Order: sequence, then structure tokens, then C-alpha cells
Amino acid sequence: MNIGIDLGGSHIAAGLVTNDGELLGKSTIPSSLGRSYEDLMADSAELCRKLLYDSGMNIGEIKSIGIGMPGAANNASGTVTCPSTLKFYNVPIREEFRKHLDFDVQIENDANCAALGESISGAARGSQTSVTITLGTGLGGGIIIDGKIFSGFNFAGSEMGHMVIVLGGNQCSCGRKGCWEAYSSATALVESAVRALEEEKNSEIYKLAGGDISKINGKLIFDAAKKCDPVAQKVLGQYVTYLAEGIANIINIIMPEVFVIGGGVGQQGDYLLNLLEPEVSKLVYDGGCPGTTLKTAELGNDAGIIGAAMLGR
Amino acid sequence: MNIGIDLGGSHIAAGLVTNDGELLGKSTIPSSLGRSYEDLMADSAELCRKLLYDSGMNIGEIKSIGIGMPGAANNASGTVTCPSTLKFYNVPIREEFRKHLDFDVQIENDANCAALGESISGAARGSQTSVTITLGTGLGGGIIIDGKIFSGFNFAGSEMGHMVIVLGGNQCSCGRKGCWEAYSSATALVESAVRALEEEKNSEIYKLAGGDISKINGKLIFDAAKKCDPVAQKVLGQYVTYLAEGIANIINIIMPEVFVIGGGVGQQGDYLLNLLEPEVSKLVYDGGCPGTTLKTAELGNDAGIIGAAMLGR
Repeated sequence: MNIGIDLGGSHIAAGLVTNDGELLGKSTIPSSLGRSYEDLMADSAELCRKLLYDSGMNIGEIKSIGIGMPGAANNASGTVTCPSTLKFYNVPIREEFRKHLDFDVQIENDANCAALGESISGAARGSQTSVTITLGTGLGGGIIIDGKIFSGFNFAGSEMGHMVIVLGGNQCSCGRKGCWEAYSSATALVESAVRALEEEKNSEIYKLAGGDISKINGKLIFDAAKKCDPVAQKVLGQYVTYLAEGIANIINIIMPEVFVIGGGVGQQGDYLLNLLEPEVSKLVYDGGCPGTTLKTAELGNDAGIIGAAMLGR
Repeated sequence: MNIGIDLGGSHIAAGLVTNDGELLGKSTIPSSLGRSYEDLMADSAELCRKLLYDSGMNIGEIKSIGIGMPGAANNASGTVTCPSTLKFYNVPIREEFRKHLDFDVQIENDANCAALGESISGAARGSQTSVTITLGTGLGGGIIIDGKIFSGFNFAGSEMGHMVIVLGGNQCSCGRKGCWEAYSSATALVESAVRALEEEKNSEIYKLAGGDISKINGKLIFDAAKKCDPVAQKVLGQYVTYLAEGIANIINIIMPEVFVIGGGVGQQGDYLLNLLEPEVSKLVYDGGCPGTTLKTAELGNDAGIIGAAMLGR
């Protein structure tokens, strides 16, 4: 048995995971940005103890504990650097966790954990090489090669959301202009719908949001498009074009066996894939070879917990 | 001792290479596009025999023979697919070679061989993870992970020249618009200079080409820029911007320890790096981590031979 911990900005979630990547139970506590790594590790260890207590297990029955979190996690040194969200600079996560629970935890970036989870027991199971992207507030990604996470020589790679696809285009949070994230995150989809409604309010999107533009989210735009709303279909058509260009770029570079789309947008399943597949297949430089299979994620928010639990398997 | 064969469109080159990746001698014969794989393998085997004869060695002293060529080379099955230049569809290269020389050859894509060569005894030696791009007629690339070539699940990956950086931009030979290759190959650099000269002929580029626009090549544009020619400097400045955006994209995704720039443009060495480094470092999403080192290639046209020879080491 293993424990995976997903350390996010708004909560910490931990779960008991079998050696095959099956999640047996989980527990979540609220958290918040701006807290110290000492506090976060105390809470994480406490969550582990709660999981053990609830399941009637003891720590000796646990093979591996892993923690997934934003930023560049150096599992060799046990330290994490995350200047953007957690404001951590080279903090000793492993050492700190051990002060609360005597266990040698594995650490990894959260998007990489999600990709590992999907590759072991999710949409990419059975493949050796896969890429999983998460379309949410931002666009995160993880690369699995030969069944293992690949994140570059300094654990800071697979930032594929920060691949420019429209030179000089929309401003991205990273400082560059035209990043894939600025066009294909769920945030970008919503922003695009809001812009469209400024010109044409007579749309199912506006109705579904009860006339309150601040209530628009990705799902609502898909719902409106499924009702054949022309504004939603136009917004989604443009969104899919951008998403397809970025996916084709990544396929041309990495050529994974399976490409998994996760996050809120990925929950649209076959509806999304039916829009996306014809676009991507037009763009991929496949040289006449059998190509990458596109899938939507299967593990939802649990992918990160499962992947974290599998780090030490 | 090993033999590496570089099978190109205009010639076949083969070399004797030590186990450390040192090229001891090479031999080249002219070739041409449109020839059958049977003919090319007969010539390749003949070149091997010539190398052995000239060096006074026999085949029993050879540890590995590798062939690098365009397209997707499946080393597991010994077959190659290259619809674009060689017009090969799943042809049995290994089996055919054996008809002429009783040896189990390794096969690989030529850009991947160049990347392996640079990683073993060239600019990226000593690193475990590197990317090498070749800026010539097109923009080819190879990815080395843990000292080995990575080319995706079907041997068709690392086509990084076909990453779109300017959506809807310049037409690329692959059918997409705005590929990195269409902005950062040596061909694209020359085309950009030709366009600039259409507006302003009073340029050192025009003089160095003897007034004949068809004589302009990449080196000549660099030569003019070094003489402070404003047209050349403007063309080169724009070219470096595109090159830097693509390099930053690849670094954000792969995060190699070393990024090597080869081909004719790479021969500009420090002059190129001094233009490029400030641009790339502004664009990389490094999360506060130590970043990728940019270098220019050291092995020139021999990189492919050396890499091919090292496939079976």
C-alpha cells in the first residue's frame, strides 16, 4: 500500500493507493496559499496519520509516500523551488516531513504526478510513453517516458503551457506573449466567450449564466455549444483550433503513444475528442507512421494523488 | 572500432570511429535522390569494405556499424519509412545491407545520429540530456535522454522544426503555416535577406553576393552584419528573435542540460551565441532553477557519422 499527497493552493488531499494505482480512500483538509512549508508538512503528515487510522493500518504496511506540489521538485535532494504560487525557494520538504512522520517521502511536481497517475491506472495505462496536459486555470503538463516521469535535467521541464504558438500574441502570466496557455487553458476559453458576448449577448451562454458574465465557466460554454448556440460554437471552434495546434506541436516533438487531456475541459470526453481529432490529425507531421492516440483523462482530480503514491513504487 | 554511415541525398559518407566517438578516417561517394534502397545498401556496404581495406582492418575488429538516414528508422524491425526525400515505405534496410556484408547494422534517423554524436564527443559531451538542432535547408532536431536517442514511441518524434510558433504564419513545406522551420532554417534566413534587399539594395549583402541575389547564403549575411551593415543586422536581429522563441519553447518542454545549434548557422559560434543568449534567457520559464547551456555544434558534418557509429556501443 502507498500514500499519495496532492498539495494544492486551496487544499491538501491524501489517499491510500494500491501498488497497481487503485485509489482506496482519501481525505482532504483545507489549506491556503502563503502558508509556510513547515505548516504544510505538519498538515500533510497529519493527513497520513488520519488515513492510516481510518483504515486500521500502520506505517509499516506502507511501501511509499509521495507528495505532489507546484514548482520544481528535486527528488534527489528532497527540496522544492516554486517562486510563483507557493513562494518556496529550495526548501527541504523531505527533511521537514520527517520531523512529523518517520518516512522517506518522494517529491514531485503535481502536473508530473497527474501524468504518472494517468499512465499507470488512467487513460494512458499500458503505454510506455505518454503526455498528459491539464486544462484549468493554467495549462500544465507532464511527460512519461519508459514508464517514468521525465522533467529535464533540473526537474523544471515539461512546462508545455509556456510554448509560444502565436508570436507576439496574447499576454501570458509568464511574461511571454502568445503562449499556448494563453489560448488553451480553461481561463482562456472563458475569456474568449466573454469577449464574444460583448459583441453578441443573444447567446445560450448568457442565458445559462443567468445573465451574469462572472458565472461563465468552461462547462457552460460546452453546454451552450451542445444546444447548437452559434456564439458558443464559434468560441469553441476557435478554442479547438488553438488546442489542436499546441497538441500537434507536442506530438511532433515528443511523439507519445497516448496524449491525455485532463482538467475541466477534459471532462467533456468524446464531445471534445470528436472536435479535436480531425484538427490534430491534419496538423501532425507523421511521416507515414502510426500516430499518437488522443484520449481524455480518466482519473480526474485523483490523478495527482495516485501519481504521487506511485513515485516510489 | 565502429563504422558510421551517413546516407544523404547527395552523397553517402562513412567513417571509422573509436568507442569514445573519435573519427579516425572517412570516405565519401556521390549519390542522388531517387535511387533504390537496394542500390544504396550495396554502395554503403562497399564503402565499409573500402574503409576496412584502407585501414588494414578486418570486419572481425568492428564492434558496431550504424546507418543514419532521413525519415523514421525502426531499429527494432530494421525498416525505414521516409515518404518525403528518399521515398521509402517500410523498406528492410538491415536485411538488404546484410546481403552485401554479413553484419547486423543499427539504423536511425540522421538528425538523431547528429544529436547522439554531439552528445558523445561534441558540444554536449558529458551531459545526459541534450537537444541538438541542425539549421540548414530545413530545421532538424534530435533529443538525447539519459545518453540515448529519444524519438517517441514510433521513432517519428523530435520533428521540432514542425512546431508552429506563428499561428497562420509563413507556409511550411509540411503543409502547416508558421512552423519554426519556416522562420529559423538557413533557407528562411536567406529568404528574409532577399526580401529585405528588394526594398533596399544599398547593402553589404548585395555587394558580397556580387550583385547576384541567387548567391546569397547564410554565411554571407553574417559576414555583412559583422561589417555593421544595417540591412544585414536588421535581418539577423529578426532571425535571432524567431530562433530564440523556438529554442525557449523546446527548453520549456524538454529542459535539456545542453542545447546545441548545428548546421551552417551554428558555424557562426560565439558571434551567434552572443546574439542569441540574451534573447533566450529572457524567454525561458525557468522557475528559478539553473538553466540550459546554449552551445554551437563542434562536429560539423561528421556528427551524423559519429552518432551512427555509436548506435551499437
